[in-house]
Amino acid sequence: MLLQMAIDRVSLEEAERIIREAGDSVDIIEVGTSLIKEFGITRSIEGLKSRFPGRRLLADIKVMDEGAYEFGKTYEADADIATVMGVAAMATIEACRDTARCFGMEYMIDLLETPDEKIRALAAFGDAIFCLHLPSDLAGEGLRELVIREKILLNRSSRTAAAGGVTLESIPFLKQAGVDIAVVGSAITKNENIGRAAAAFADAVHE
Amino acid sequence: MLLQMAIDRVSLEEAERIIREAGDSVDIIEVGTSLIKEFGITRSIEGLKSRFPGRRLLADIKVMDEGAYEFGKTYEADADIATVMGVAAMATIEACRDTARCFGMEYMIDLLETPDEKIRALAAFGDAIFCLHLPSDLAGEGLRELVIREKILLNRSSRTAAAGGVTLESIPFLKQAGVDIAVVGSAITKNENIGRAAAAFADAVHE
Repeated sequence: MLLQMAIDRVSLEEAERIIREAGDSVDIIEVGTSLIKEFGITRSIEGLKSRFPGRRLLADIKVMDEGAYEFGKTYEADADIATVMGVAAMATIEACRDTARCFGMEYMIDLLETPDEKIRALAAFGDAIFCLHLPSDLAGEGLRELVIREKILLNRSSRTAAAGGVTLESIPFLKQAGVDIAVVGSAITKNENIGRAAAAFADAVHE
Repeated sequence: MLLQMAIDRVSLEEAERIIREAGDSVDIIEVGTSLIKEFGITRSIEGLKSRFPGRRLLADIKVMDEGAYEFGKTYEADADIATVMGVAAMATIEACRDTARCFGMEYMIDLLETPDEKIRALAAFGDAIFCLHLPSDLAGEGLRELVIREKILLNRSSRTAAAGGVTLESIPFLKQAGVDIAVVGSAITKNENIGRAAAAFADAVHE
């Protein structure tokens, strides 16, 4: 399993400091939606990638419309992975997939609030990573049930990430459920000792 | 009926030029999602509002999560109206509504890809403006059917906007259907004569 660290609701200087302190414990650096919306694609995505060129960077751009345009801008800013919402129109998700292929990059379909029948249909996107995602406005209640239900709706071969209230205690469950990426936000980034928190998650995720 | 002009996929300098050329024909200036994501909230929303302080400005921030945080940032940047997706979690939409009330500002619930039963539940948000919204990745096909269906799912008193392939020819239909705001994008902003195109839409919308 891989560890993805989601960075949100901080300045770009703080984001840089967080990435340095977390160090190599983290496999994927997520430039959170709030950073992209507050500071724009160029300053947030391209800015952070240029400071950490060797790192795998996911841009949580959360596309709902204008798939080709938004994905194009995101990959041009050097993101390795871009996100589209599972609740977006099928035509939008297809445009995102095609743009990802065109750039030779990866894409994630975020299943936040996506109805079951739509998830079943999305399973056909064989090269996507699916994010099993509990809204943060729900404060972490119900992640396990959501992971179990949505894993069944997808294909056995679908790559998955889990996000929304992931704790150190929930990592063994996520591994057992076959989740490929654990997405951790404030449990690392708002920790007093970011390096130690990231290392603890890395130990649990990588063991 | 009011005319909302959506500005997308241009530089901020071009956005400024478009707003000047469209002039007073336009009632609501929409800072499109692409401008917010590309240039960030401060440069796009606050930047344009500071140049056009007397104008009513809608920020198409399309919140999917972190309702209070994203709406707070949007209103702090002086937007008059902020948007949240109808497909977001109910807790997220409630957080957006509460933040809008706290700032004494307006909010729009964007019904892009929102299932019928969710639209019925959202009708309870009596102070919202609802955007009946065809994905632009569908290229304008089916807007009338969508408006008719979604108007029935909402309350008679719900305020509504229509977006996605609105043409000069579709304005009489939208008025007859009781839509309060016509959202027009590239039909004005990509027109060779922006002032004339905006005036033509304004004539049809306001008559």
